[in-house]
Amino acid sequence: MSQTGEILLRDLSQDGILRLTLNDTARRNALSEAMLARLGAAIADAGETSAVRVVVLAANGPAFCAGHDLKEMTAGRDAPDGGRAYFAKVMAACSGVMQAIVTCPKPVIAEVTGIATAAGCQLVASCDLAIAAQSARFSTPGVHIGLFCSTPMVALSRNVADKHAMEMLLTGDMTSAERAAEIGLVNRTVEDGALREEVMSLARKIASKSSMTLATGKRAYYAQREMPLGEAYDYASRIMVENMLTHDAEEGIGSFIGKRAPSWQDR
Amino acid sequence: MSQTGEILLRDLSQDGILRLTLNDTARRNALSEAMLARLGAAIADAGETSAVRVVVLAANGPAFCAGHDLKEMTAGRDAPDGGRAYFAKVMAACSGVMQAIVTCPKPVIAEVTGIATAAGCQLVASCDLAIAAQSARFSTPGVHIGLFCSTPMVALSRNVADKHAMEMLLTGDMTSAERAAEIGLVNRTVEDGALREEVMSLARKIASKSSMTLATGKRAYYAQREMPLGEAYDYASRIMVENMLTHDAEEGIGSFIGKRAPSWQDR
Amino acid sequence: MSQTGEILLRDLSQDGILRLTLNDTARRNALSEAMLARLGAAIADAGETSAVRVVVLAANGPAFCAGHDLKEMTAGRDAPDGGRAYFAKVMAACSGVMQAIVTCPKPVIAEVTGIATAAGCQLVASCDLAIAAQSARFSTPGVHIGLFCSTPMVALSRNVADKHAMEMLLTGDMTSAERAAEIGLVNRTVEDGALREEVMSLARKIASKSSMTLATGKRAYYAQREMPLGEAYDYASRIMVENMLTHDAEEGIGSFIGKRAPSWQDR
Repeated sequence: MSQTGEILLRDLSQDGILRLTLNDTARRNALSEAMLARLGAAIADAGETSAVRVVVLAANGPAFCAGHDLKEMTAGRDAPDGGRAYFAKVMAACSGVMQAIVTCPKPVIAEVTGIATAAGCQLVASCDLAIAAQSARFSTPGVHIGLFCSTPMVALSRNVADKHAMEMLLTGDMTSAERAAEIGLVNRTVEDGALREEVMSLARKIASKSSMTLATGKRAYYAQREMPLGEAYDYASRIMVENMLTHDAEEGIGSFIGKRAPSWQDR
Repeated sequence: MSQTGEILLRDLSQDGILRLTLNDTARRNALSEAMLARLGAAIADAGETSAVRVVVLAANGPAFCAGHDLKEMTAGRDAPDGGRAYFAKVMAACSGVMQAIVTCPKPVIAEVTGIATAAGCQLVASCDLAIAAQSARFSTPGVHIGLFCSTPMVALSRNVADKHAMEMLLTGDMTSAERAAEIGLVNRTVEDGALREEVMSLARKIASKSSMTLATGKRAYYAQREMPLGEAYDYASRIMVENMLTHDAEEGIGSFIGKRAPSWQDR
Repeated sequence: MSQTGEILLRDLSQDGILRLTLNDTARRNALSEAMLARLGAAIADAGETSAVRVVVLAANGPAFCAGHDLKEMTAGRDAPDGGRAYFAKVMAACSGVMQAIVTCPKPVIAEVTGIATAAGCQLVASCDLAIAAQSARFSTPGVHIGLFCSTPMVALSRNVADKHAMEMLLTGDMTSAERAAEIGLVNRTVEDGALREEVMSLARKIASKSSMTLATGKRAYYAQREMPLGEAYDYASRIMVENMLTHDAEEGIGSFIGKRAPSWQDR
């Protein structure tokens, strides 16, 4: 770790797994302007870098991510407009990062340790996959401070059933990792000590696939999700035809029929 | 209780919790025209009354609510049009009440005892939150009488997964409270004897929040739920900016940073 | 069984249950062109045949259905266009069968034994109801062969939460029957030896209902599912009014009030 002082650590493994570690422990990994800028740049870069096959989003310290930086937000009130323009800028930056995770062509896995609150909970909900340490906890506590977690709920409500989302949003209560797994906010939980290896093992498995295939599928997943059934089938059928015509599908199917290991174009 | 003979009881506590209790036990709390009118008026009134912070919907008797009043509906067939205009009127009234619960700026919690069937099950599904007694049961039994639960399924299918909704709708079978919690129709179950206190405790917790914040968040929740992701983020970001500029958010954030209790504008 | 050599067996019981059994065990019940044609025709025929009240989709052999026929697909590459037109034809046929299950006026129940993969998993997801043997397993393994399960995910993502769908799609891993029940891909699991009777019992229960009512409800279910809330209520209310005016609703409600068994128009 030669990145002392960095609030976002990057570590790219030989097998194509980029670990992004939130490292602003003094601010509980809050999504400050600086953190949003670094995270957004890192996700954008991961999308464009062929050596990156899978992204893992992890965190140092007792908080996975505490959401917006409330002191920074409060300072924004000093502007002549009471902060309106500043708040709009921060919200746009934050929503941009969340959507960048969704549109990133590389799968993004949250490795959740500690407490993920407000936009930190949204960060977990925005990832394609999430595994939580058994001691991890989640909440959307904006209601405690007069600021409903309205942007976090966009991601939350696309992960869990309405009554579960509303319970988190209306009470601000903490949700255990076990309960988060039950309601679909995370895929599963593992013992704290086994979390990193479990996530890296999942990441390695996905990283062994064709990057073209993963990118095609991830993009298509979120696109078809918002279409009516008939339109979704027309769209997905076109995606399948194009995918069939790629090198990697021909190679993959050929290797399967021939009972040999496939060799992807980008490897 | 000075409201003897009333089919809908109202009780507003000092801390802002309005208990609405279905009390037409002779008709198993059916959603008769009279009940729909009272329930609709009570929900509308709750929305406009600042002393009401949270609504609890409860019931007296062995049935939480048995759905439409089939005898009343049958009597409607005597009209020259075979009941068409009457049925349309009743359906509009019922759907109006269900949507009034969703659009009510105050959170609505179902306290489910006994049997919630057909539009009674829809009532539970339409509330923001629901806690059920362990002995409570749910069904959409219209299929038994040749009348598919088509309006109940609008709410049901927005709470539970398709296969679970279809099983209830196609079989008309009873679903236990425990199973209802598993599939997301209610938040959780508690022992019958503990239900009322559990619901009131949840209601008090929510009633302690800023009413403005709750209203903002509830409205935004259901609005963004129906938007594509990008549109939902644009919308929710605007909501957050407006929310930041309110007294209660400034007070809430200030009290959080200053480690003191917040004082909401409407208190 | 006089249908030796047939890849799709049909058996219509006296009580109106049509069992369609995938019987191309040598090809693991792959959705070959021939199988898609037969399945599509059988579903269409079931929809139009009044003696058919419920459809059960079952399979012989260790694979419920292995998805597309990869050898057939590969042979398609020999065309001058590299297979583009052929792949488009196969995808249209497959998506057509899946949507025919959804639009079939008769409820369709999957009776899942063995392994349901790729479009085979999609087949289960497309049915209205599904019960799985405890030994059944599910996967969307296209990612292993460079061909993301993009059409299967249309159905999968309408059954299970995003993170669960993405885990199946990005890893290609097998999902146990028990886990499939937890995430909503199937309604429940039963011991292998009890599966057939459990499914037939469910089918008989549904077959005893009014076919008109089931058809009305099933069509309305999937239609309203894709509408915003207000539009869904307007639509479902109109469906309810029309349903009230049918013979079977009048008969069903009359028999319920009169405490006698109903007599449906189509029986």
